[in-house]
Formats: sequence, C-alpha cells, structure tokens
Amino acid sequence: MEHQSKILDCTIRDGGLVNNWDFSVEFVQDLYNGLSAAGVEYMEIGYKNSARLLNVSEPNPWRFLDDNFLKEIIPEKKFTKLSALVDIGRVDPDDILPREQSVLDMIRVACYIREVDKGLELVKLFHDLGYETSLNIMALSSVPEQQLLKAFDMVKASPVDVVYIVDSFGSLDPADIEHQVKKFREMVPNKQLGIHTHNNMQLAFANTLAAYQSGVTFLDSSVYGMGRAAGNCNTELLVSYIQKPSYELKPVLGVIEKHMIEMRQKWEWGYIIPYMISGVLNEHPRVAMAHRDSADRDKFVEFYDKVTTPEAPLAPASK
Amino acid sequence: MEHQSKILDCTIRDGGLVNNWDFSVEFVQDLYNGLSAAGVEYMEIGYKNSARLLNVSEPNPWRFLDDNFLKEIIPEKKFTKLSALVDIGRVDPDDILPREQSVLDMIRVACYIREVDKGLELVKLFHDLGYETSLNIMALSSVPEQQLLKAFDMVKASPVDVVYIVDSFGSLDPADIEHQVKKFREMVPNKQLGIHTHNNMQLAFANTLAAYQSGVTFLDSSVYGMGRAAGNCNTELLVSYIQKPSYELKPVLGVIEKHMIEMRQKWEWGYIIPYMISGVLNEHPRVAMAHRDSADRDKFVEFYDKVTTPEAPLAPASK
Repeated sequence: MEHQSKILDCTIRDGGLVNNWDFSVEFVQDLYNGLSAAGVEYMEIGYKNSARLLNVSEPNPWRFLDDNFLKEIIPEKKFTKLSALVDIGRVDPDDILPREQSVLDMIRVACYIREVDKGLELVKLFHDLGYETSLNIMALSSVPEQQLLKAFDMVKASPVDVVYIVDSFGSLDPADIEHQVKKFREMVPNKQLGIHTHNNMQLAFANTLAAYQSGVTFLDSSVYGMGRAAGNCNTELLVSYIQKPSYELKPVLGVIEKHMIEMRQKWEWGYIIPYMISGVLNEHPRVAMAHRDSADRDKFVEFYDKVTTPEAPLAPASK
Repeated sequence: MEHQSKILDCTIRDGGLVNNWDFSVEFVQDLYNGLSAAGVEYMEIGYKNSARLLNVSEPNPWRFLDDNFLKEIIPEKKFTKLSALVDIGRVDPDDILPREQSVLDMIRVACYIREVDKGLELVKLFHDLGYETSLNIMALSSVPEQQLLKAFDMVKASPVDVVYIVDSFGSLDPADIEHQVKKFREMVPNKQLGIHTHNNMQLAFANTLAAYQSGVTFLDSSVYGMGRAAGNCNTELLVSYIQKPSYELKPVLGVIEKHMIEMRQKWEWGYIIPYMISGVLNEHPRVAMAHRDSADRDKFVEFYDKVTTPEAPLAPASK
C-alpha cells in the first residue's frame, strides 16, 4: 500500500496564492527539473482558470495556464507528470485540449461541498478528454457530516480517480485526519484518496503522515512549504521521510538553496501567529491575511480579541 | 487522564542554548507573569549548574541560577511553579538549598543512558531536599533497547517523580513516540512520564500531542518554539489545543508580541534546512549549528553531501 503513494507538489499553484504567481520561467523550469530528479510524481504547475471568466486583463501565465506556453517552457517531459487545478465557474471547458495534445496529465477540480455535482460534471468532461482527475472538496473541517454523505454517493458513481481530503483552514490534527480517511474509505471504496494540508498549527507534515499511514495515496506538498498563509506540507520532508528508492532529497535542497530562501524573504508564508489563531478557530485565513497586510501585522493580542469577540463581524463579505 | 497533564515551559533554559542565556530580567519577569496568567504549570527558569565546575568566569544568571538572585527577580510566586535543569558532573550539590528556602519547586536531572545511575543519585539528593524531580534521558533515539531496559530497573526503584522521553535530535515521529510511551509505561508503571521534543522535522507539536494522547503528563514546550537549533514544541500551540479551562492563550500572545518577534530576528531557531537534515539522519544538531554559523550557512546541498558521505568525519570530538 505505502509504495503506491505519490507526491503531488503544489508549489506553483498554492504558492502562487502568496505572490500572485510572480514566478520566473527559470524558477518553474528549475522546479520541474528538480522535482523530476527527486522522483516526485506530480507537479501542479498552476491554475487552468479562464482570465476572461475572471475579468482579469493582465497576463498571469501560471494562473491561466496556456498549452502553447507550457510546451515552450517544458519542451521535453521528464519523470514528473503535470497537473493543473480548476475552480467551478472559473474554468472554460473549451480551453481544455484533449490530453494527447496537452502537456498536462491531470486536471484537479476544487469545489465546496455544495458544488460537488458541478465539480463532478467537470471531472467527467476532463476524464473523457483523457486526463487523470481528482475532486478536491475544500474546507472539509466545516462540512456537516450529512452533506458529506450525500456527496459521497455522487462521487462513487463518477469516473473521478482521486478524492481529496482538503484541510483548507489548517485546523485538523492527525486523529481528525485518521477519522476522515476512515470515513472516506468506507464511503468511496472504489476511489484513491488524496490529502492536502495547511501548516497553521505546525501539523501539515504530521497530518500528511497520518493520511499516508492510513493508506492515502496522493500526498500534496510544496517545496519549503510555500503555499497560502501558513503554507503546506513540505515536499522536502516527504521526500526525506517516505521510504521509496526513487526519492532523492538533494535536488529539492538545490531548489530551496537557489530560489526559496530569497523568495521567503520577499514573500511571507509559514507558521505565523495570526494564521495559527485562524487554524485553532477553524476559520478561513483571509482575515489573518488582511491583518498581516496591515500596519498592525504584529499585534497578535488585538487580532485575537478581534476574531474571538462574537459580536464583531469577521469578514462581512464572505462569512 | 488528560486533565492531569501539565505544561512545562523551557523557553529560558532551552532557548538559552540559542543566545547564551542573553535574556533581560524584564523578559524573564514578563514570561513568568505571562505563563502564570496563561495557566502554564511550570517554567524552567534556567540551568542550576556550577560556574566553578564549568570554569566559566563571566556571569550568566540563567545558566548558573542563584537563589538570592531569583528571589529578587521573582519576589512573589504566582500560579506557575519554577524548575531548573542540572547536568551530571556540572552541578555542585552544595549549591542546592532545601526546597523551603528556595524559589524553585522542581529540579530536573539531564543525563545520557550510561549515566542513569549518577543521575538517580542526584535525584535522590534533590528529592530528600524536598523538590519534585525528573530524570531526562537524552538522545533517546540512539539508545539501544537493552541499555534502556537496564536503566528502567534503576528508575523504578528510585524516588524520581517523572521520567522524560527526550527526542534530542528531533528525529522521532508520532508512531515512534507512541511506541516509546508504551514501553516506558510498561517498564516504569509507578512513574509519571514526560515528553521533550525538537522541531527538526516540524513534528515537535505532533509528537507532543501523540505523547499527551498516550497519557504522558509532563509536556515540555517553549514560547514561539525558542530552543536549541530547530527549537521545541510551541507553548502557544499546547495552550490553544489542550482543553483545560485554566489555559489562556492571550497572555502567551502578549509575550510573543512584546518580545519574541524581535528576538527571533536577532537569534535563529526553528525549521531550518540543516536542522531538518540532522533530524532526518538522527544526528546531534551540533554540526548543523556550526554550518549555520559559517559563511556557507545557506549551502544546503554542500551540507547534505558532507554529512552523508560515509568517510567524512562529522564531529571528530564527539562521535
């Protein structure tokens, strides 16, 4: 079981939420080559959403992946497969080529629990085009059990390859993960499972290990943990820890040394107190991210008071 | 069981290994008051080793604790009890007052497996003086099973209150911790257990949780994780996570906000690649610490090659 597991590196896709995908072509190429040399099975090279549907006019190649551009950047595929993430209502199905004409191998669909039906429609479409597919149900820690059970029925009947347990808020612990994995395995025994964690409480790696040891096969991670807010499980930890002869730590260290130290000085992610607090409270990190962008960024007590005072609206637009 | 657990904050003692105990009196007082307000049960305020035995002439009040000085600094005890750590051969038993004349409540004895007999001699002495005591067996991940079983016999017969599982190298994972706890509980059923972790692989909190959930009662931690090399389990995470009505996160956030952000800019601890590597390799962090003190501090590939090349001596003096 354990040897069937695969690492899916999200540095570009989830890390892009930190720096608005301000990644150089050189970095993305170095990352691809490094992950291939390290034996990492998948690299998520960005979002394949539609700039038109999002009303964005400025170019953003890793947010709005284009097959021709990808072919220029990665003229020759190496060991690592490529994946892209799409969001419901933001992807234009007409943008997706059949797999044999694309550099991409896998398309992952992110959705909230209420949109699982729409998500699976997209999955079906991408599956029929020849892609490996996954459904990533976000904000799992806030999903009522009953809604999840309904979703499982649809998932079980769909052609999706992998169903992800996504701890969007970084609020779960290893025992929670084991509980979720057990439930998912019982309810969708015909699907592979995946895990995507966030490091708000410094549990991203431990939670990923708990999932791995419970038989989850797709393990999401990012090099040096780069991902939104508290970031993700670190790719270098998975490559070090998982006993697979094909994994090599050194190429990942090379990427960190050449790029990530400097990037971390420029952009912020990781274990940071307001993100810890939002994890503990099982809240979306957006309020904490806004706080870190303000002049009060290091006022932790004030932030804590703000988010724990019941009458104060946290994020009026989205709660 | 769970409600019997206690947090023992090591910020001053283990954090002092980062900055040569360069803590202001104001910081130590703020920390004591903050931990008391947070409901943290113990604070380890330093080492009670002997400057004379260590041939150190410059003053270092938190490394060579003095009862009169402590009484000045903390004229009135609040909620939190105080502990001190001593090392075999470095402590002068004549320096230790009877507990009723001291501000200290607990004396902890650190030792390697080969010195458990000497460690328990000291424990007996401190116990007879009225202190709570613990024996902290270091470098547990490198101790052969057979030696540990012998040590357990001596521990079982001693008056020591707490026996610690110490992951000095930050190389254990939650499953390892559960295994160790099980062994310790079987072999010394008459003692409370403690856990002291390091964060080399970002597992310090997860390992402490695993110990807590297995019934370990003394949980070591440091505010903002400040401790040697990769640092320790974070006090703020334990206070947030453990469901005990007396725990309050806010006073710990106050200490972090007022002091630790600036301290972290001045001194280095935490998840840093060479410490991650030494954790993965189950090595003492000293080679990694020397590397971080050199001009090559960010050359991770070079460091990895150095420590994984069999013919290269790592640390000639101590291996």
